[in-house]
Amino acid sequence: MKGFFKVQTPEELYRKLDRFKPLAFEKVRIDDSLHRVLYEDVISPVNLPEFRRSTVDGFALKAKDTYGTSEKNPAILRLIGEIPMGQISEIEVKDGEAVKVATGGMVPEGADAVEMIEFAESIDHHTLHVFKTLSPLENVIQIGEDVRAGEVVLRKGDRIRPQDIGLMAGIGITSIDVFLQPRVAIISSGDEIVPIETVPKPGQIRDINRYTIVSMVKEAGGIPIFLGIARDRFDDLKEKIELGLKESDMVVITGGSSVGTLDLTGEVLRSFPGTEILGHGVSIRPGKPTLVADINGKPFLGLPGHPVSAVVIFHFFGKPILKILSGLSREWATHQVKIKAKAARNIPSVPGREDYVRVRLEEKDGSFWAHPLFGKSGAISHLARASGLIKIGIDEEGLEQGEEAEVILL
Amino acid sequence: MKGFFKVQTPEELYRKLDRFKPLAFEKVRIDDSLHRVLYEDVISPVNLPEFRRSTVDGFALKAKDTYGTSEKNPAILRLIGEIPMGQISEIEVKDGEAVKVATGGMVPEGADAVEMIEFAESIDHHTLHVFKTLSPLENVIQIGEDVRAGEVVLRKGDRIRPQDIGLMAGIGITSIDVFLQPRVAIISSGDEIVPIETVPKPGQIRDINRYTIVSMVKEAGGIPIFLGIARDRFDDLKEKIELGLKESDMVVITGGSSVGTLDLTGEVLRSFPGTEILGHGVSIRPGKPTLVADINGKPFLGLPGHPVSAVVIFHFFGKPILKILSGLSREWATHQVKIKAKAARNIPSVPGREDYVRVRLEEKDGSFWAHPLFGKSGAISHLARASGLIKIGIDEEGLEQGEEAEVILL
Repeated sequence: MKGFFKVQTPEELYRKLDRFKPLAFEKVRIDDSLHRVLYEDVISPVNLPEFRRSTVDGFALKAKDTYGTSEKNPAILRLIGEIPMGQISEIEVKDGEAVKVATGGMVPEGADAVEMIEFAESIDHHTLHVFKTLSPLENVIQIGEDVRAGEVVLRKGDRIRPQDIGLMAGIGITSIDVFLQPRVAIISSGDEIVPIETVPKPGQIRDINRYTIVSMVKEAGGIPIFLGIARDRFDDLKEKIELGLKESDMVVITGGSSVGTLDLTGEVLRSFPGTEILGHGVSIRPGKPTLVADINGKPFLGLPGHPVSAVVIFHFFGKPILKILSGLSREWATHQVKIKAKAARNIPSVPGREDYVRVRLEEKDGSFWAHPLFGKSGAISHLARASGLIKIGIDEEGLEQGEEAEVILL
Repeated sequence: MKGFFKVQTPEELYRKLDRFKPLAFEKVRIDDSLHRVLYEDVISPVNLPEFRRSTVDGFALKAKDTYGTSEKNPAILRLIGEIPMGQISEIEVKDGEAVKVATGGMVPEGADAVEMIEFAESIDHHTLHVFKTLSPLENVIQIGEDVRAGEVVLRKGDRIRPQDIGLMAGIGITSIDVFLQPRVAIISSGDEIVPIETVPKPGQIRDINRYTIVSMVKEAGGIPIFLGIARDRFDDLKEKIELGLKESDMVVITGGSSVGTLDLTGEVLRSFPGTEILGHGVSIRPGKPTLVADINGKPFLGLPGHPVSAVVIFHFFGKPILKILSGLSREWATHQVKIKAKAARNIPSVPGREDYVRVRLEEKDGSFWAHPLFGKSGAISHLARASGLIKIGIDEEGLEQGEEAEVILL
């Protein structure tokens, strides 16, 4: 074995990911921008609302005309008309006058408040009684109260959500610049790995990692490109990795089950000029043999061959790299969706490495309980049953039953 | 106003959604199955692993040959060969013999344990010293230990995750039946609503709801079909709703800002034979005017026109209906992603309705703090800034600073 590199903590390796840079951008229509990452701050060209709007169904009037009114002592106003929805109105409200207006309708000139329909009574077509004292601006949204022209409403690096698309629609922005989606070359390796359509002979196994990693790349907003299964030979690995570097923004290889594959991969990487190995070996379980490199600015990730280890390591290192390439702001790049849960039974661990135990979550009495799914790291069935991974810190000897820890949702 | 229906609690309305039924199915390749919903239980046709595998790099041997060994008193074994990865081996291990094997490699006949390479020393090509006592089956995964042939590994109604696809790949399943994705017709309505490419005249506003609802349907796994903006007239509404019922599995309309639109919509629905109105008015804020109907088994959802209300109500009623149509198991259909957070300041509310206040979350000292974003319900900019909605129960008068409540993530 060629162990040139000392084992690092996950944090040490994380810090080195900062060297990678986001990709370029493209223009898309907002209809196609869901979950993309903004390349630019979005600045509103307009005020929202662009006119004074009523927030209720009722009567636009001057607030001062309602002062001191009550159910027993209504103000008597002259009803001078109605504001039709979506139309310009030339009506101007003067002292002692009121105009009917619907929710969202324009509050006409002169009026400064809207009496709700529940507190008014039409006596005849021209006479209105109102019962409730209003302050100026009550039930009125002012021009620019939601969004002011020139205001930054969304920021570069934001991941676009449905409500963000709605906001852009509201201010009339129809297309925007977003970061390109990273293309990720995926290579399986190992002499024992066969395509899943093949019936494996004794000693062979189907290529699970291709399918999990391709799907995880999709979930993280990348575009997966599967390059096939490499044999555990220098030339075959080199040919596929070279193709990956040419065709994509990041290369991911899943090792064979043997430790030797990632060592051989390390040799291949060192044969490229401009390769810097950032880590080979990380104090995390499962996943110790992890290999991370920078090849002329392009990230390379070597994952262990065990399907569970590959998923865990892609989750902790692959996704953050992808998020950086995608242009997500740094606070998002290393963000994990995690919740607190209590250990449903004792979960032992060995200090000196971060241990991620597969757990099934159960909600009971207002708390989450984490049931560990113990199993040798090849057990993909456990991962399919798991809700997430419970973390046991690098200095801890395990969790006692009832002890609380973070669960990272998968 | 035509208020035929009394206001219901969200729970009362939820319970009525159970009447809707999942759609039919289609066959897809597992490559295309990410986030789809299983129409069938997946039963493994094979054992996994299909042969006994080593979990370490080392030497396969009989455990009894290691009994009583130590660093000072190694067992001396005859090294009779090596198991090449991915190949069948005819070697049989006899008493006093060992065979080199890599992680994932086949454990040959006769051997029942694997000594790790760290606890062994090759003296010459044929002689091996081993130092550590092993129990039978140590470092060996047995046939079927991960998955047993005939075992149900995934269930009808599961949403397919990357690791589930990996599991199916591992047992050689290349295509599966999944529920069809619901097609959702979306209609905007309101005389004041204009397409976003249009410069609105005073009194008009851009069609925000089209964009938020289309995006939320996509996120929930549906296929949105936008049918255009209906004017607030019986005939126009009826024509578009009829088209929606013909072309899709669910119809969603967003009302104009006025309360009247959803009343008019209710009249249109009653003109179809086989319409059952399940609710018109729900004690939730924002979103009271919500309209839910069953038109010959097809769900119809009328959302308030206010953009924020529309998003909140689609989240609470639209998504659960979509999940039921998608075939998700019921426990998933009403599941919300929520976390606990403390109110960063007092948040007042009025009892008698569930109140969902937009909040921005901040993580500090190991807790989440919810900062309320107060604003009139039309304020789409607040929704874009919000991380989620904090719930104030129907009988509560609000939250005091520091009080804990659930936040539903948006």
